[in-house]
Amino acid sequence: MSTPLTENDRSTDLATLLQNDWALDSTRDAIGKTYVFKNFIEAFGFMTRAALWAEKWNHHPEWSNVYKTVNVSLTTHDVDGLSDLNIKLAKKMDALAG
Amino acid sequence: MSTPLTENDRSTDLATLLQNDWALDSTRDAIGKTYVFKNFIEAFGFMTRAALWAEKWNHHPEWSNVYKTVNVSLTTHDVDGLSDLNIKLAKKMDALAG
Repeated sequence: MSTPLTENDRSTDLATLLQNDWALDSTRDAIGKTYVFKNFIEAFGFMTRAALWAEKWNHHPEWSNVYKTVNVSLTTHDVDGLSDLNIKLAKKMDALAG
Repeated sequence: MSTPLTENDRSTDLATLLQNDWALDSTRDAIGKTYVFKNFIEAFGFMTRAALWAEKWNHHPEWSNVYKTVNVSLTTHDVDGLSDLNIKLAKKMDALAG
């Protein structure tokens, strides 16, 4: 179950993420971030940890990886835009990335 | 160490991959394939197995994942195009994907 972000969520939780290198997608209600790690092991290690949380929460990122770089995009199809689950996963990813 | 594909490699190994749903990139000397799995666990499981081979061989894919779909692109920067390593990793990925 996911809940669309309220205006209050956007001015608090979302605003905090946007101050932490997340960016709004220009074409849809989504947020994205690029993580750069030391090497592939660190990058894929991050993805693996995030994947386990994503599966546990049944909320999955759209993401790509080129060597030490991971690009993430988060949105929620069920609500056709950003939801509380996106905020939760974004915060978790930031924590996992250290 | 990677070796650029010879014309013979292209008419044999590469041709075989192209018959197996790999496609030449229209903008650079690279090959790509889209794998569709049953769910995220299967998709990310495939990525994890492929990642270990990629790291072992020090040759990494460019790839993206959206839930059960994995898009892969292979090229070799050292030779500015396709090399024997791309063929090797493509074959391995096909084997891992079952």
